[in-house]
Amino acid sequence: MAEKIRIGVLGASGYTGADLVRLALRHPNMEIAVLTANSHAGKPMRAVFKHFAHVDLPDLVTVEEADWGSVDAVFCGLPHGTTHTITREIFASYPDVKIIDMSADFRLRDPAIYQEWYNVEHTATDIQPEAVYGLTEVYRDEIRDARLIACPGCYPTAVLLSLIPLAKARLIDASDIVIDAKSGVSGAGRGLKENTLFCEAGEGLSPYAVGKHRHMAEIEQEVGLAAGIADLRVNFTPHLIPMSRGELCTSYVKLAAQTTAEDLRDQLVETYANEPFVTVAEEGVLPQTQMVRGSNYVVVNVVPDRIPGRAIVISTLDNLVKGSAGQAVQNFNVAYGIEETTGIEQLPLFP
Amino acid sequence: MAEKIRIGVLGASGYTGADLVRLALRHPNMEIAVLTANSHAGKPMRAVFKHFAHVDLPDLVTVEEADWGSVDAVFCGLPHGTTHTITREIFASYPDVKIIDMSADFRLRDPAIYQEWYNVEHTATDIQPEAVYGLTEVYRDEIRDARLIACPGCYPTAVLLSLIPLAKARLIDASDIVIDAKSGVSGAGRGLKENTLFCEAGEGLSPYAVGKHRHMAEIEQEVGLAAGIADLRVNFTPHLIPMSRGELCTSYVKLAAQTTAEDLRDQLVETYANEPFVTVAEEGVLPQTQMVRGSNYVVVNVVPDRIPGRAIVISTLDNLVKGSAGQAVQNFNVAYGIEETTGIEQLPLFP
Amino acid sequence: MAEKIRIGVLGASGYTGADLVRLALRHPNMEIAVLTANSHAGKPMRAVFKHFAHVDLPDLVTVEEADWGSVDAVFCGLPHGTTHTITREIFASYPDVKIIDMSADFRLRDPAIYQEWYNVEHTATDIQPEAVYGLTEVYRDEIRDARLIACPGCYPTAVLLSLIPLAKARLIDASDIVIDAKSGVSGAGRGLKENTLFCEAGEGLSPYAVGKHRHMAEIEQEVGLAAGIADLRVNFTPHLIPMSRGELCTSYVKLAAQTTAEDLRDQLVETYANEPFVTVAEEGVLPQTQMVRGSNYVVVNVVPDRIPGRAIVISTLDNLVKGSAGQAVQNFNVAYGIEETTGIEQLPLFP
Amino acid sequence: MAEKIRIGVLGASGYTGADLVRLALRHPNMEIAVLTANSHAGKPMRAVFKHFAHVDLPDLVTVEEADWGSVDAVFCGLPHGTTHTITREIFASYPDVKIIDMSADFRLRDPAIYQEWYNVEHTATDIQPEAVYGLTEVYRDEIRDARLIACPGCYPTAVLLSLIPLAKARLIDASDIVIDAKSGVSGAGRGLKENTLFCEAGEGLSPYAVGKHRHMAEIEQEVGLAAGIADLRVNFTPHLIPMSRGELCTSYVKLAAQTTAEDLRDQLVETYANEPFVTVAEEGVLPQTQMVRGSNYVVVNVVPDRIPGRAIVISTLDNLVKGSAGQAVQNFNVAYGIEETTGIEQLPLFP
Repeated sequence: MAEKIRIGVLGASGYTGADLVRLALRHPNMEIAVLTANSHAGKPMRAVFKHFAHVDLPDLVTVEEADWGSVDAVFCGLPHGTTHTITREIFASYPDVKIIDMSADFRLRDPAIYQEWYNVEHTATDIQPEAVYGLTEVYRDEIRDARLIACPGCYPTAVLLSLIPLAKARLIDASDIVIDAKSGVSGAGRGLKENTLFCEAGEGLSPYAVGKHRHMAEIEQEVGLAAGIADLRVNFTPHLIPMSRGELCTSYVKLAAQTTAEDLRDQLVETYANEPFVTVAEEGVLPQTQMVRGSNYVVVNVVPDRIPGRAIVISTLDNLVKGSAGQAVQNFNVAYGIEETTGIEQLPLFP
Repeated sequence: MAEKIRIGVLGASGYTGADLVRLALRHPNMEIAVLTANSHAGKPMRAVFKHFAHVDLPDLVTVEEADWGSVDAVFCGLPHGTTHTITREIFASYPDVKIIDMSADFRLRDPAIYQEWYNVEHTATDIQPEAVYGLTEVYRDEIRDARLIACPGCYPTAVLLSLIPLAKARLIDASDIVIDAKSGVSGAGRGLKENTLFCEAGEGLSPYAVGKHRHMAEIEQEVGLAAGIADLRVNFTPHLIPMSRGELCTSYVKLAAQTTAEDLRDQLVETYANEPFVTVAEEGVLPQTQMVRGSNYVVVNVVPDRIPGRAIVISTLDNLVKGSAGQAVQNFNVAYGIEETTGIEQLPLFP
Repeated sequence: MAEKIRIGVLGASGYTGADLVRLALRHPNMEIAVLTANSHAGKPMRAVFKHFAHVDLPDLVTVEEADWGSVDAVFCGLPHGTTHTITREIFASYPDVKIIDMSADFRLRDPAIYQEWYNVEHTATDIQPEAVYGLTEVYRDEIRDARLIACPGCYPTAVLLSLIPLAKARLIDASDIVIDAKSGVSGAGRGLKENTLFCEAGEGLSPYAVGKHRHMAEIEQEVGLAAGIADLRVNFTPHLIPMSRGELCTSYVKLAAQTTAEDLRDQLVETYANEPFVTVAEEGVLPQTQMVRGSNYVVVNVVPDRIPGRAIVISTLDNLVKGSAGQAVQNFNVAYGIEETTGIEQLPLFP
Repeated sequence: MAEKIRIGVLGASGYTGADLVRLALRHPNMEIAVLTANSHAGKPMRAVFKHFAHVDLPDLVTVEEADWGSVDAVFCGLPHGTTHTITREIFASYPDVKIIDMSADFRLRDPAIYQEWYNVEHTATDIQPEAVYGLTEVYRDEIRDARLIACPGCYPTAVLLSLIPLAKARLIDASDIVIDAKSGVSGAGRGLKENTLFCEAGEGLSPYAVGKHRHMAEIEQEVGLAAGIADLRVNFTPHLIPMSRGELCTSYVKLAAQTTAEDLRDQLVETYANEPFVTVAEEGVLPQTQMVRGSNYVVVNVVPDRIPGRAIVISTLDNLVKGSAGQAVQNFNVAYGIEETTGIEQLPLFP
């Protein structure tokens, strides 16, 4: 019988928190001990998410009521800027607890950049140096011993897995990247907003946050690191698509001299040869969100452009799984020395 | 390490076959040995269903090429009327092979009724008596020893799980049942038809096969048996809904004398108290397809009508899982003495 | 050049109000003089509904700011219970103004029944007797001279156009009607509710307000009147469908003695022979919402049930057009002696 | 009473043909005389498109049966490569008939380029010089006297209306344009293909024809002409989006020296100041398909990129209206000296 690690989920009433709960319930090494959701405290989880009608779960409590001494690991699914204090407190008071943060709060290495993009003061900058950027395939070794794992945003996960190997190998000109991103509506969260109503988001498509989406900062930080370019800037333009889950990023890149689209694809094939969750599609096969829905897989590929010297890099994932809760579980597995695929082996749900 | 049972899937290029493959790939006791799809023979499965890009599977072969001696169990996902011969042949030649048929061919006990509804001659009527109607919760004991399991249609599964206990207990007048059924588009299969194109089925809803849907025959057979009424007739009216998966049946029933909607609900609660996959929703909570998407769960409930003497019985399931491939796996588990929930414990995918 | 009638729209920031504005902008006899929306007062309409980016419209004002002396006709698109006072005031102070109310406030002839269903006190019961139930095809003569037109709910419009002629002609047993209704999400309005978010309503279907939807009262009132039955009760069960517009009602009826489904269809054909907006589908053709999207048309048909003595009556419309704003314009045309189809001749938008 | 011009529609059973019929039925100067659809010849239009249940239309005939002497104008909605012969024949035999071609056959000025992209021999190259590229806002004067109008593709219409004025004014570097395009599924036509089934295209998104979509040729031709660059190449990458109608193109452009995004927007504002169908969105308002659904409007805007020297140009339209049938009617109006907005004044349908 598998040993159980008791987990707590901060913010279980959002889509990210709920997907974490969905995965945790079937993870052989997890036992859900605490679920918080301040606005729904006191309610059973099944009242907040009807698809949990079939299972037993602890009732929701407020963050304040939660007994952090009763858990071994904490997943945080709250919005950025709301958990500096609690994270810092748990980090300080419970040295054995590992924190897997799905919020944006510890992703940016430079607090000044955090402040600039998120427009809130960061009150836990002292523990920022402890945070490891939780892009599993890139930072696996660091994650193993981390106490604070800052899981990447959904878009950055898709983009970085496709671009970091190319930037590292100097196969592309990292200073000239245009990323056209498309996401399903769950990426906007469960908060009540007019533009995510069925009648507003359905049967239509809209760009949003053009030129100012916060995930740009993460992308610039990590591609810049890979390419060895300080203050890198990329063009990142997201669009809201009438589907619930799924994300696809089309990156338009300039090839390094003497480099072909095929070279780029070869690099990705080599990089991901032994990765369980990153699939390089067969030559000529275009990634599409239908390949990953409900799963922790990422699919990437490179397509030649007819314009000489350019290529198109495509990557897709499920924003709530590999883009959030699934990658969090993957990092949990790494951090606790469990087989990395445990609990996230589900195949995509199609149709 | 779990012992592996080698399976073959007849008709792996349809939605039902593909969902069976999805479940089988993660079932600890299954090994996929044969996949047939005559129109795609020779191709790898990932070329036919892109969401299998991440896994290795045997290439597709024709039914004729398949080596039935290499398998222990056969799942059939082909349309009705196409597999009488092959099923009969496998049944006769491989006495140790169990056949779990997801087609409609062996569901109707009376071949004359089959002929009437399906309009084809049944060429395997001699093995019909061996077939067990694969509604697991009702026929579990018979399934245990069956060699030929005729899994119910998706609609009948939803309807029968909610109505059989009520009819058996004589709580409703089974001769006066109106069933208004709604299904997602995957119920219509993967064949190319104009009415299942995105632009035709999307943003719209249509009744179909009114007064003549073939699932009616199964419902009449089984509710009739439960109620002890020969030649029972029900009103069954299906509608095509713009979603991929999911099915919901709203049954309008007449209560027996001195009976209330609450009595009906109590009966369902009692019947399903220990069933792993049937959830009676809490009082006042209305079943909805969002509670079951991608899972093997069924949710049922009973709601009082303001018209005295009547009640509304609602049931919902995922047509491709509990309504087809999932129930097939459940029956496989029962038939092979494996823990019944193995491989189909996935929670619903929401959103 | 057509003479212009100046109109005011109460509640222009809801879907119903906006669709009225859409139609009014292209109606040759309407000039939009006043648009109210208390929560958006001061804004231009294009800021509230982006599809009005192409046209000039008066800025939104509060109900209190509006100058009712500047209009000839008032359309009310506010929720029930919010406009008793203003309606009464306009009715009293501006005897030349006609009020076309799309809310539920004046639909029920008996204030006690209003109170029972809507759970608010009606403070304008004195003008209730002046109200004409605005089901154009049934009450056209009364509408011609009415000063207060209470447009029916969307569901009642669909149901009543199909059932009133049958009840009047005593072709069905009006005391045994089961109406299974399905509506797109716009029927739930533009208010922010979790269940109408894209991720919650999409790819799923749910019954709601079972046994207690307020449109039931209207249906009972009008079918009761037609059938000559006091205190009639019907079964009316609505379902939320993942599409924006459209509504389809499937009514299960018991035939009068010696009556066939064909007789019912003949009755509808005869009743609607000269109606511009009611189409009886050809024999065997099933109504579907795709036949009416974006238009003022209704499609009805009758299908025999295989159960003897019963038939299935199907009707469909666009809930925002014939189910609300379109019928309001139709009534406006009748009330002002304009050709009835003016401004609402648009054909359905498909796909 | 408006004078009627008798029209024929080649290919009335496709989405483009049907939308032309929808508009023609309410156009005061059109009378539909001939509808062809070889695969449905002999059927009434309402059997092929159910939303025409409300109107009378000529039965469908084959192209061969059609009497071209009975019409004044011909709209062609057939796929490219199928109508060279018939177009040439009508052009030669009926000198008074104007042909408004919605296919791709006469859009490319250079037959060699046509051959290269469409991979069929062009058998009517002799009349190519007579063809006017039917982008109304750009070629209005030429359209006025044209006998053969080659309406642009849907994507090119969206792209060109936003980029031509910028290229002409030398505000952008036309040799460095990346166009990421997104289209609803109706753009793929009504033919039966697996990838446009509801279950395949729904709840998912896929790039397609990357690096080889034929609309690229038109875009290169016209942007090249505007910019004065021979053999211009652009990056054009289309994606299939789960909605029926609508198209949005996000173009990433490099600014000319000393030029700002604001200059680009000013140029568009100036260019389209008096155009009835092109709306430049207010500063900071992002175009979205919800602004144009079902209408002949185009919305464009320019947004600064945070990368210095670059800007993002966004344009959106309904692919079946301004992207096809609506623009065809607009060109018809111009060619016949009718008020340009006649019959296409419908406002967008939202929600």
